[in-house]
Amino acid sequence: MWLRDNCRCAQCADPVSGQKLFGILDLPAGLTVDDATDDGTDVTVRFAPDGHVSRFPRAWLLAPATPDERTEEGKQFGTGATEVAWADFRDNRTEALEALLVRGFVLLRGVPVAEGAVLDVAAEFGYVRETNYGRIFDVRVEDNATNLAFTGREVTPHTDNPYRDPVPTVQLLHCLVNAATGGDSGLVDGFAAAAALRAEDPEAFAVLTRTPVTFRYTDGDTDLSASKPLIGLDPVGRIREVRFNNRSTQPLRAPHADVIAFYAAYRTFAEIIARPAGRLDFRLGPGDCIVFDNTRMLHARTAFAESGARHLQGCYADLDAVASRRAVLARRAPLDLLAELFAGPGAADYLGESVSQAAHMLQAASLAEAAGAPDALIAAALLHDVGHFTGEISGDELMAGVDNRHSHAGADWLAAWFPPAVTEPVRLHVAAKRYLCAVEPSYRRQLSPASEYTLTVQGGPMTAPEAAAFAAQPVAADAVAVRRWDDAAKDPGTDVPDFAYFRPLLERVLRR
Amino acid sequence: MWLRDNCRCAQCADPVSGQKLFGILDLPAGLTVDDATDDGTDVTVRFAPDGHVSRFPRAWLLAPATPDERTEEGKQFGTGATEVAWADFRDNRTEALEALLVRGFVLLRGVPVAEGAVLDVAAEFGYVRETNYGRIFDVRVEDNATNLAFTGREVTPHTDNPYRDPVPTVQLLHCLVNAATGGDSGLVDGFAAAAALRAEDPEAFAVLTRTPVTFRYTDGDTDLSASKPLIGLDPVGRIREVRFNNRSTQPLRAPHADVIAFYAAYRTFAEIIARPAGRLDFRLGPGDCIVFDNTRMLHARTAFAESGARHLQGCYADLDAVASRRAVLARRAPLDLLAELFAGPGAADYLGESVSQAAHMLQAASLAEAAGAPDALIAAALLHDVGHFTGEISGDELMAGVDNRHSHAGADWLAAWFPPAVTEPVRLHVAAKRYLCAVEPSYRRQLSPASEYTLTVQGGPMTAPEAAAFAAQPVAADAVAVRRWDDAAKDPGTDVPDFAYFRPLLERVLRR
Repeated sequence: MWLRDNCRCAQCADPVSGQKLFGILDLPAGLTVDDATDDGTDVTVRFAPDGHVSRFPRAWLLAPATPDERTEEGKQFGTGATEVAWADFRDNRTEALEALLVRGFVLLRGVPVAEGAVLDVAAEFGYVRETNYGRIFDVRVEDNATNLAFTGREVTPHTDNPYRDPVPTVQLLHCLVNAATGGDSGLVDGFAAAAALRAEDPEAFAVLTRTPVTFRYTDGDTDLSASKPLIGLDPVGRIREVRFNNRSTQPLRAPHADVIAFYAAYRTFAEIIARPAGRLDFRLGPGDCIVFDNTRMLHARTAFAESGARHLQGCYADLDAVASRRAVLARRAPLDLLAELFAGPGAADYLGESVSQAAHMLQAASLAEAAGAPDALIAAALLHDVGHFTGEISGDELMAGVDNRHSHAGADWLAAWFPPAVTEPVRLHVAAKRYLCAVEPSYRRQLSPASEYTLTVQGGPMTAPEAAAFAAQPVAADAVAVRRWDDAAKDPGTDVPDFAYFRPLLERVLRR
Repeated sequence: MWLRDNCRCAQCADPVSGQKLFGILDLPAGLTVDDATDDGTDVTVRFAPDGHVSRFPRAWLLAPATPDERTEEGKQFGTGATEVAWADFRDNRTEALEALLVRGFVLLRGVPVAEGAVLDVAAEFGYVRETNYGRIFDVRVEDNATNLAFTGREVTPHTDNPYRDPVPTVQLLHCLVNAATGGDSGLVDGFAAAAALRAEDPEAFAVLTRTPVTFRYTDGDTDLSASKPLIGLDPVGRIREVRFNNRSTQPLRAPHADVIAFYAAYRTFAEIIARPAGRLDFRLGPGDCIVFDNTRMLHARTAFAESGARHLQGCYADLDAVASRRAVLARRAPLDLLAELFAGPGAADYLGESVSQAAHMLQAASLAEAAGAPDALIAAALLHDVGHFTGEISGDELMAGVDNRHSHAGADWLAAWFPPAVTEPVRLHVAAKRYLCAVEPSYRRQLSPASEYTLTVQGGPMTAPEAAAFAAQPVAADAVAVRRWDDAAKDPGTDVPDFAYFRPLLERVLRR
């Protein structure tokens, strides 16, 4: 059932959206595996009773569970502050997003000292979460403050808006003025504190994870409340969310013994949170903007003289969009790597040919494009020889008589980012040469001397049964097409577009 | 520790914001109760070692735990649809908010058939949750749809955006056009389905609550994923959130036995969800807008001919703001009740006096206002006699010689909505008469004949020790002030403002 529920054939998953086209009840109840074959790359399964056939890449079958990065599994503790200059933000986005997701916060420097600038910062991380405080809120001294944050009092480490569910998972605080005496900032890692509590007093930890606490905030137009434990776990017991805010905690109504246990645990947790060693102290100056995970990091402020000027602007956002942005940027990372490969090692001589390897692959891609090939096949043509760089055995060794299996090495390397429509023609482009030599005598005659040499190293022409088996594979035609462009792409006189030209196409075909 | 942590004195809780001014570590660790006295209304506690004194109303001490209305505790199953005409929405807000919170959805009729009108609807429920789909999204057939919702396919019951965390907790869908054949809507109560699963197959229920499932959505700019169980419980085991979406479910990577158990449970849950009896079918026509709890209600759509015109606009919002709005409206409910009381029974004769009871109370409030009294004391003057209407013993019985203890009955009734600064002077305004008669001979001489009569029924003048004990109470001065306005407020010739004039003042002093 698990296998079948994960079939990705065009009948089971929408080719454009990738979304599953069936529900669990659409699958026969008594499903069994009728037949399974393993070709070393894919496992092909035929199911009974309906005879549906699915192909699963071995790499997919063997993939481990991915950690839930919203839990403690995905976090680093005590690594200090990541600072990013706002002027260079676009070049350091991955670092900034990663710091927020993994370390819990990032400190931006040099954000314009202008009202509303915090919204520009928020837009780089995701979407503003509008609340009863508006899209943006001002943190400064107010008369008749309905929130102690808007006085000059000390504010001890806390998470914001625990009375809200869903709680805002990201908070931004942008400093416009901080001329007051006092008013320094502090951060405490609530996940680290919860982990310390678990290590030092497991029963107290258990009490705080199983006791819902009600938080409430009211003003003239608002009456928000939410009940959640101080330490929220995922269903397998990993720390996933911390709420801690003395100002808005409501009376606990529970059996006497539970109340006693709760207060003992609450105090122990508060003592851990209050440890100076766990607190990062800093002072926000004009233009600084701290962005932090409000499900994890407790923030604090020392008291300041209300006569002194201090003005921050804040807003809320959410972690899911932060992680999405990081994932989208990560998609682009292999393209950066490929760009470097084309510019660096790829620009060197092509083994025994009169063009560079990069020029050779760019020519192959141009020929595919001119032939009207689909994006994935143009990408396969462009990337068919990357295995020469990425495999354990170099192209030079191939030329010395050792088969470097560069087609397989390249396909395996590319599979981390590209779908089978790209990787499988790459994987079979050497087999396609051996196939064409077997079935098409004129083909072999036009091979370059270097290619004729490597043919032997790679196993020589296929036998008739091998050729028949090769041709029976659905991907054979694509592999043959890539092979023919490969062979034709060794003309030193051809002018071809550079890697940057093909980059948008690669971006389109990247595996999601 | 529990008592002390809930002290509401001005030193412990900010009088304006109501927020707690101390953290748990500010309380002495070895805290004990040194002394406690119970005057029938409040329990006064002195703590050791620091001698801090706290007063707790008995009513507060005895209050039960409030249910968490986000869990199944706060929900009603199978009650059918609540429909509200958009034109009358402002008069039916409580009903609409309540339906969404308690029944899971509300169907609005007659919303203008105009692009963007769904945002006006959302503004009545809370704040729009902006996502990668924008503030608003269009549900209609698209070429190369990245989401199957944007095709003509059937969409089986599901919750939206399970790949997001925090998931949007409210969804609105506003129909602009529905001329297609097919394209009918359906709703299934996921909480009811989960409760049925628990009843029918407890082990399957347990499996679904403890197995995190990863959901994912990707497009060119987006790569969202979240891992949550299909049935989310609060830490004490109540159903709190359902996620169910076959389209975006990712491969489960877990030990073999867990996968087997998960698929059996998943299928059983899906079978319950698919039961026709649990599905509410309806058809959205132009101007209809369905607003539903996306943590609870699964929505579905039948297939439709892509040639037919069908266009919905949707947006997301959040339940916390919905509950806040309902709570703020509920605050106003007692004022509606009081307005009716002043207009109805209050307009009748005042027992043995020449003004109506309503006119008497309005006069008392006007005198308090003229004396520059604070809001709470003006409110106490305005409401001092409500016990004549709300108590079990009527004012007529009082005049027949039975003490109706109307001051206590009124204070207890008001305490549901008003703070002690309002209720306690009301409670003691009869005692204040008995006190003044004891200590101020000239006071008794100016009592009206009716008041002189009831004095005897109410116990006559206080003894000297009683008077001393009365005067020692902090609230005595306020009670005496209310009493003097009470006595002076029986002038048939005085023109006073009506109840509506004092309503904003009452709104300000309502307990939050």
